[in-house]
Amino acid sequence: MKYQVAIIGGGPAGYTAAEAAARAGLSVVLFEKRALGGVCLNEGCIPTKTLLYSAKVYDTACHAQKYAVSVQSPAFDLPKIIARKQKVVRKLVLGIKSRLTAAGVTMVTGEAEVADKNHVKCGEELYECDNLLLCTGSETFIPPIPGVEGVPYWTHRDALDSKQLPQSLAIVGGGVIGMEFASFFNSLGTKVTVIEMLDEILGGMDRELSALLRADYAKRGITFLTSTKVTALEGDASSVRVSVENADGASVVEAEKVLLSVGRRPVLKGFGLENLDLEKDERGRLRVDSHMQTSLPGVYACGDLTGCSLLAHTAVREAEVAVHHILGKADEMSYAAIPGVVYTNPEIAGVGETEESLQRKGIACRTVKLPMAYSGRFVAENEGVNGVCKLILSENGVILGAHVLGNPASEIIVQAGMAISLGLTAEQWARMVFPHPTVGEIFKEVCVEAGH
Amino acid sequence: MKYQVAIIGGGPAGYTAAEAAARAGLSVVLFEKRALGGVCLNEGCIPTKTLLYSAKVYDTACHAQKYAVSVQSPAFDLPKIIARKQKVVRKLVLGIKSRLTAAGVTMVTGEAEVADKNHVKCGEELYECDNLLLCTGSETFIPPIPGVEGVPYWTHRDALDSKQLPQSLAIVGGGVIGMEFASFFNSLGTKVTVIEMLDEILGGMDRELSALLRADYAKRGITFLTSTKVTALEGDASSVRVSVENADGASVVEAEKVLLSVGRRPVLKGFGLENLDLEKDERGRLRVDSHMQTSLPGVYACGDLTGCSLLAHTAVREAEVAVHHILGKADEMSYAAIPGVVYTNPEIAGVGETEESLQRKGIACRTVKLPMAYSGRFVAENEGVNGVCKLILSENGVILGAHVLGNPASEIIVQAGMAISLGLTAEQWARMVFPHPTVGEIFKEVCVEAGH
Repeated sequence: MKYQVAIIGGGPAGYTAAEAAARAGLSVVLFEKRALGGVCLNEGCIPTKTLLYSAKVYDTACHAQKYAVSVQSPAFDLPKIIARKQKVVRKLVLGIKSRLTAAGVTMVTGEAEVADKNHVKCGEELYECDNLLLCTGSETFIPPIPGVEGVPYWTHRDALDSKQLPQSLAIVGGGVIGMEFASFFNSLGTKVTVIEMLDEILGGMDRELSALLRADYAKRGITFLTSTKVTALEGDASSVRVSVENADGASVVEAEKVLLSVGRRPVLKGFGLENLDLEKDERGRLRVDSHMQTSLPGVYACGDLTGCSLLAHTAVREAEVAVHHILGKADEMSYAAIPGVVYTNPEIAGVGETEESLQRKGIACRTVKLPMAYSGRFVAENEGVNGVCKLILSENGVILGAHVLGNPASEIIVQAGMAISLGLTAEQWARMVFPHPTVGEIFKEVCVEAGH
Repeated sequence: MKYQVAIIGGGPAGYTAAEAAARAGLSVVLFEKRALGGVCLNEGCIPTKTLLYSAKVYDTACHAQKYAVSVQSPAFDLPKIIARKQKVVRKLVLGIKSRLTAAGVTMVTGEAEVADKNHVKCGEELYECDNLLLCTGSETFIPPIPGVEGVPYWTHRDALDSKQLPQSLAIVGGGVIGMEFASFFNSLGTKVTVIEMLDEILGGMDRELSALLRADYAKRGITFLTSTKVTALEGDASSVRVSVENADGASVVEAEKVLLSVGRRPVLKGFGLENLDLEKDERGRLRVDSHMQTSLPGVYACGDLTGCSLLAHTAVREAEVAVHHILGKADEMSYAAIPGVVYTNPEIAGVGETEESLQRKGIACRTVKLPMAYSGRFVAENEGVNGVCKLILSENGVILGAHVLGNPASEIIVQAGMAISLGLTAEQWARMVFPHPTVGEIFKEVCVEAGH
């Protein structure tokens, strides 16, 4: 069988590329060894957000009296929360499947192996292709902590499916995944301890907002151990002991369960990548150009596999760029305005540069920030909750970065991404008409503030 | 006393102009006869959204089991809901006041009267000014229905402050204000009947989405009488009878209370406008140029007073444009991308052209729409709820309009406004990176769909 495009991996990069290429008239075969939708849809973005929404509803019920609404005995049913999550995932996976079917994509379930740049084996079949897209994604990195093999640790996958609420949970790694689970289990009443090697949680996000979020969750009962190294793990199904070391010395965190969320790494093995002899960069990542093409013409790499951003929306955009290149349509990948969102409650979101990233690059900038309470809607809908909106401007007023702590940061950050992509100045952005009253108006307020 | 800028009216137009002018170094006096913040802040946008949020929390509690959360006996305390609303309003009014104070604006409480273009009287004082901004806003229009004088009808002001929940409520006028109160009282259990003269609610919004929202609320118990004229009102403090006429003949709607929300009209009297002899247009509205300047140089009119848009965010932008003109800074008012939002649950929002408006203008367009379920986050957070996102494109793919039914339409519509303001094509917009998973991604999905 011969196809114009063969794609290995059915996550956001793979399914986006498959649909785009097929709808543009190319013949496409997509290989996926597990479930269509990849980690994002099956055990990442979507399932976590579904669980977090149930936690938010529970939170809302518990604090309804802030809005003069009362309820008795708020409770949750964890097995049902998880069952609903499965239902949402199934619905969305079916949606992707029907879109790919409608587009005419050939879907093959199985482990594909690249033979050479124009041939992929799967089972007994050999598939010929003009273009090859590698979209194998990433996998959980299990740190080589002494004792880790002997402990029944959780990864995000277990945390998503545990029908029993642990009384206490130690989370090793205070990045996005760690903090989203910290938020979920904290809302449901688990005693959570977050252990982070760096001196602040959410590395890569705005440092000031991350610290505010941390302080907020500390008030709500999460224990944070930052600048703390995990030196050993021991335990069994009923309890774990996490040995840690920091400036205060050595100590032990005891918890019912331990979740390892120290990071993810590209999947570079198990699909015949070694048969392609692709160039790598100095950090060992696949070298791709601005069209996502590797050193071999006709071979593209998109998504977490490149180790560049590890975000589903980056993968989607990279896949589009690759397909456009195959189609001969002008397009290029840009990483200048990729939003990052943490779905804690409140959410934190950012796009573009941070003060920290510009400082590292030695670029002068101006920071303007306002409390979220400058938005009337924020005040109306966030009783007793604080937040901050911060813009980072170049010396001539161009928006370089935007960072928000406060709901719904995830939904409003995209407009800041647009402003950055389009090279708007604060003055130009402020001249757009922002609907009133919205939380998103806060950007206008900060832009106006920047003008004074 | 002499000022560079005198402003009559302390609503969104007035307070925005006052702060902007004062922070730019001009001496400013602002006259307000009632409360700083105007209708928007004291009895409009902000109070309604505060009440609606309590209703949403109550709704969430009542339907928490959809998300595997259970509560017993959900209840609300209407006097407390209203007290909280007052608190929010007070906080925001104080915020505006302190911002104006910090900017050095002279605030005068009292009824101002324009003597001529350079003089304003208030009480015993005469104020001289170089520039005069008229920002007197709008007031509720009470339709001349036979019997209206004898009935203790509600306007939005009464509906915002009623500490007793009516068992039944007839709402005359199914526009934005009518529908927001319909949503509020329906959530709290009042039997609501909406009577609308036109053949669809929410005139001016996308017709298809308005009809979907109406059908949704009909399922939740609201009775809609469209294409229906109110011919008479009678009643007392305990009940009203609304006589109506439509294609089915004449009938009577009985309810405990009646809310009149047929529209608002510019405040053109009571502040000496007649002493200025300003030009009006064929519809009797003050004629202003693209800098919001009236036919008299140095006299500007901003906000509802112009009868042009009657939205707080339009007023804010108009005020900025007027102040920029006074300051000699290039700027111009554009009405091409003014979002409209209805804070029902779900929300409905739109910006730019509708299919109906383009048809009237005889402009060819292309409509592309998708169910909101194409957004994974929408599915995760809207169990059993449907929605639609629709884009209106020019023949060469430029975004002309965007319309959304589904939460949080209010917060995501602004990016569509940006796309329209900046003249983006669907293809250009789709190349922005939308964070995943968000509801706002639906715009990207529709843009991608438009490309096929």
